[in-house]
Amino acid sequence: MSELSRQLDLILRGAVEVLHQAELESKLARSLKDKKPLRVKAGFDPTAPDLHLGHTVLIHKLKHFQDLGHHVIFLIGDFTGMIGDPTGVSETRKALTKEQVEENAKTYQRQIFKVLDPDRTTIEFNSRWMGAMTAEGLIGLAAHYRVARMMERDDFQKRYQDQKPISVHEFLYPLVQGYDSVALKADIELGGTDQKFNLLVGRDLQRDYGQEPQVAITMPLLEGIFGLRKMSKSLGNYIALEDAPGEMFGKMMSISDELMIRYYELLTTEDLTRVKAAHPMESKRQLAELIVARYHGDEAARTARESFQQKFQEREFPSDPDVRLTLTKADLKVDGTISLADLVTRTGLISSKSEARRLIIQGGLEVNGQKQTDANAVLTLITGREYQVKVGRRKFALVEIQA
Amino acid sequence: MSELSRQLDLILRGAVEVLHQAELESKLARSLKDKKPLRVKAGFDPTAPDLHLGHTVLIHKLKHFQDLGHHVIFLIGDFTGMIGDPTGVSETRKALTKEQVEENAKTYQRQIFKVLDPDRTTIEFNSRWMGAMTAEGLIGLAAHYRVARMMERDDFQKRYQDQKPISVHEFLYPLVQGYDSVALKADIELGGTDQKFNLLVGRDLQRDYGQEPQVAITMPLLEGIFGLRKMSKSLGNYIALEDAPGEMFGKMMSISDELMIRYYELLTTEDLTRVKAAHPMESKRQLAELIVARYHGDEAARTARESFQQKFQEREFPSDPDVRLTLTKADLKVDGTISLADLVTRTGLISSKSEARRLIIQGGLEVNGQKQTDANAVLTLITGREYQVKVGRRKFALVEIQA
Repeated sequence: MSELSRQLDLILRGAVEVLHQAELESKLARSLKDKKPLRVKAGFDPTAPDLHLGHTVLIHKLKHFQDLGHHVIFLIGDFTGMIGDPTGVSETRKALTKEQVEENAKTYQRQIFKVLDPDRTTIEFNSRWMGAMTAEGLIGLAAHYRVARMMERDDFQKRYQDQKPISVHEFLYPLVQGYDSVALKADIELGGTDQKFNLLVGRDLQRDYGQEPQVAITMPLLEGIFGLRKMSKSLGNYIALEDAPGEMFGKMMSISDELMIRYYELLTTEDLTRVKAAHPMESKRQLAELIVARYHGDEAARTARESFQQKFQEREFPSDPDVRLTLTKADLKVDGTISLADLVTRTGLISSKSEARRLIIQGGLEVNGQKQTDANAVLTLITGREYQVKVGRRKFALVEIQA
Repeated sequence: MSELSRQLDLILRGAVEVLHQAELESKLARSLKDKKPLRVKAGFDPTAPDLHLGHTVLIHKLKHFQDLGHHVIFLIGDFTGMIGDPTGVSETRKALTKEQVEENAKTYQRQIFKVLDPDRTTIEFNSRWMGAMTAEGLIGLAAHYRVARMMERDDFQKRYQDQKPISVHEFLYPLVQGYDSVALKADIELGGTDQKFNLLVGRDLQRDYGQEPQVAITMPLLEGIFGLRKMSKSLGNYIALEDAPGEMFGKMMSISDELMIRYYELLTTEDLTRVKAAHPMESKRQLAELIVARYHGDEAARTARESFQQKFQEREFPSDPDVRLTLTKADLKVDGTISLADLVTRTGLISSKSEARRLIIQGGLEVNGQKQTDANAVLTLITGREYQVKVGRRKFALVEIQA
């Protein structure tokens, strides 16, 4: 296998789209020939430095590039963060101060350097060039992009059609992000699939400013631990990089077998064929240990594993549960979900939904060996699966989902 | 008549729209009560300092305010003029230098101070505040306006529907103009009817920035000397303020009687009832003399008048012309026009259209005593009128337009 093919294989692992692969190949070939690393950029929100595994899909892709000898740039978009909501209407979008940005940057570094090599990572702030830009400069930038083109962005199009407000300054933010690629002379920009439009603005602007356009690589949005929906703090389905080792291990063990393969693909460089051939429970343990080790060290990972196994045995589910319940699709919402409180009430082991909620809040409920503490949680139940519901210390229900 | 009614009468003379009159009245009442003049703004293009009578409609309205004791601000929009075409694609929209702006401002002053009192006129340049604005400031400004609202502007709407390009920076220009009103704390802004949208942006922004919104007063676009279309340099139907006295006088004498009333309304403060009662030819002579006197002095006006009358007698049209021609609407285009070359050819005094064009170019053609030198000119002929066509030195045709 040629060096170029080897690089391409690793770069394409898990990627959704490369715009355009021929350009990527020619950039890689030139980089190999000239022994000149490519400049690979990914942008991050300055307001939310508490990373979860969902964010690390991009950080891992940066690591792949770093392992291949390229130059990676972790860009913190502090310029727009320091603007906040310019009208002052939104309480929730307060402008960040310079100090907050620096604080958040430190938090980022503490987390990302568990993955990336600090000596070979550039951390940039776009306020460096955007803060110095005049209104005149911004007008000049805005002249490079057309309104109709901007309207093609999915969310703008939808909001315009639904007559929901779009402020004029929102048209300027993709231009700022695109201009970051110009300022950084990026060869490649990585982003989630939801960033595709903005990555392409970067390509267009670089071309207009006389640079070779960057290659845009989109990565999937990692599904949360319950599957289906993307991992997100607000959905409560996330594994934070700073979760304690035991909690992180337990959450990893609770994911489905399909999701495990997905996490292997996007968060590791393990050979997927080997993973799929192994026993799912063992693969899951290995994944959990690998991820915990990455963020907390080998020692913490070993301890988490041992502790999990011990608890797992303690919690082991009786072969003759108090209740056996069969649900069909008709018992679930159309999207295949059921609220946790509903599920518990349906077992009959508890007399009302409000009691179920109290139980959950008090930490007395487990599903598949995992403590559930969110009284508003919604579960996605999969046909053909069994769910082990432990109510309090000694009551057990086995819930089966039939087609 | 109360002082407020007197002010209102003069302010409303010739105005198309006042947004809103109740606000205007309350601003005027407060100004009278507090003996505090209102701040009245009108913006002018920094690239085109060669004014014609069309521009003076606004300048005269400023003069009305000045005569009423208010404070007038002649705003030169040099900030955007110095940006030019930011993409550098358009050869014709070169960025102005600071020196060119100053040169153009001098040209403006030479002309407008024929009407306005220099001691009571503030000349402002919006680069004073816009030049100091950062990109961040402009983003903050842009946050105050919605895309959907911007799209309501007639020309944007039409271009968007016709899939003609609109650059994002074009959305920023109305905001800059609106912000000028904030920076100047304008009480009133004057503009042509084509500026209505931008004047309203100023109102909205002032409200957002905690100021009392300005009253927007739109003035008509003055028709050019052939009637129908607005006076414009590119249409060749203009009277420049720096036209020589004789030329200015002659052009004024060539306008129709209806147009004369219009010019009296928009360019003078003469009593229109008196004007309409007088003989049209005499009223026209008085108007011509008044306008020439304004821009060239009384002496020049008197000379122009005498010289015109002398020439007019020389050129007098015979009572028995060589040709009498009657045209009906069917002979004209649907919009009531006919090309000058066609008209001459139709008289039969010349044998071909190309010969007619040559004659025009050589200066051998007069219509209603006015030399015609544009071989591509198009005339609007009015039903019921007679047109005296003089071909060369001695051939005469009288053309009548029947319904």
